Amino acid sequence: MLLAKIYVTLKPGVLDPQGEAVMGGLKAMGYEGVTAVRVGKYLEVQLDMKDRQEAGRQVEEMCRRLLANPVIEQYRYTLEEPAAPFTNETP
Amino acid sequence: MLLAKIYVTLKPGVLDPQGEAVMGGLKAMGYEGVTAVRVGKYLEVQLDMKDRQEAGRQVEEMCRRLLANPVIEQYRYTLEEPAAPFTNETP
Repeated sequence: MLLAKIYVTLKPGVLDPQGEAVMGGLKAMGYEGVTAVRVGKYLEVQLDMKDRQEAGRQVEEMCRRLLANPVIEQYRYTLEEPAAPFTNETP
Repeated sequence: MLLAKIYVTLKPGVLDPQGEAVMGGLKAMGYEGVTAVRVGKYLEVQLDMKDRQEAGRQVEEMCRRLLANPVIEQYRYTLEEPAAPFTNETP
């Protein structure tokens, strides 16, 4: 079992209205030290695979094809052994 | 200048319809090895502060008050020196 932790963020220079809204909220709440906020996605994909190289190849492809929009987003990921496997279901 | 990298995820056991939709999509695309997907948020908050302890206290509070819903979400964060400061603006 392998766990891919995937971080999808907007490319530098792409306007981030969600980040601006969060920054506005934080400043309105009194956090004056905040100078910029960027908002991205974080995904955990659990793979029933042992071959790290093949898993990496597939995760890379998933990012390009579905999880990120390569025009405006960049992505990075790590592959690790999950501490405890999880499911999408309620326990 | 400090950069807080914040990861907000659903607590274990909380149903994740977005994760299920992504898993359905990945399986439909032929990625048979995928056994579970969880979707969360990733935020980068840049702070014009030097005191790491005070920054950590503020980030913790931001998470509790605005960035995460403590009823269904959990969060973790790291604080580091940014490689290159960023803005919300287009260059």
